[in-house]
Amino acid sequence: MDGRFEMIPIGKIRKTPDRVWMEIDPEYQDAMNGLELYSHIHVLYWFHENDTPDQRQILKVHPCKNPVNPLTGVFATHSPMRPNLIGLTLCHVISIDGLCIRLTDIDARDLTPIIDIKGYFPHEIREPLRYPQWEQGQK
Amino acid sequence: MDGRFEMIPIGKIRKTPDRVWMEIDPEYQDAMNGLELYSHIHVLYWFHENDTPDQRQILKVHPCKNPVNPLTGVFATHSPMRPNLIGLTLCHVISIDGLCIRLTDIDARDLTPIIDIKGYFPHEIREPLRYPQWEQGQK
Repeated sequence: MDGRFEMIPIGKIRKTPDRVWMEIDPEYQDAMNGLELYSHIHVLYWFHENDTPDQRQILKVHPCKNPVNPLTGVFATHSPMRPNLIGLTLCHVISIDGLCIRLTDIDARDLTPIIDIKGYFPHEIREPLRYPQWEQGQK
Repeated sequence: MDGRFEMIPIGKIRKTPDRVWMEIDPEYQDAMNGLELYSHIHVLYWFHENDTPDQRQILKVHPCKNPVNPLTGVFATHSPMRPNLIGLTLCHVISIDGLCIRLTDIDARDLTPIIDIKGYFPHEIREPLRYPQWEQGQK
């Protein structure tokens, strides 16, 4: 398929031993208006440490980096190895203060670039849910 | 913040009056391995029709294009106007046949480029959920 798309970081994840937060770049402050109405947000970020042509060609991994889990296509996992290095985590917002959004936690490293935020609405799933054994074993 | 990231389409959304499906590009077939274990997938796509510098600078919208809804930051909405034009929809998979993933529906247009797929696991949300009135009014 033709065409490539360019993404711009809108801020970054920050982590210290006792605190997790997002620092949004000042030019995107207006886009945050109304976020305070949500208890949860979807945070989309870029696995920038894997942004090499070789790593972006890895299409199968052992989920959770556990060799016991069967070799699986990256689209069927949340692996940081994938053609487009997008991470997606549903986060609980503790507070918003200016350009700083405090979170209870996020499974991304300090200084990870953020690419989008979406307020979270509950999904209306009526069908029975199916998902792989290896995830169910983690709980 | 410095740096830009490049995204590659991995397939496209297809829609006819009686059918909705995703056509994955052949080079990503291996990345689909294991997707058949999920009833639901997160589909990430690119709002390519809005990919102009002017449209990517729109930071506030009336949610659901309804002027009754208060002008709101795009991060607090699922608007197709946003700095990075990523759409995110949780979809129910009907069937997977080779490179074709049939869906019950998706709120994206025919020929929309797909950028990622992630198998869906149920979220463990323990806190009470909060989200804006305008979404609750839609239900």
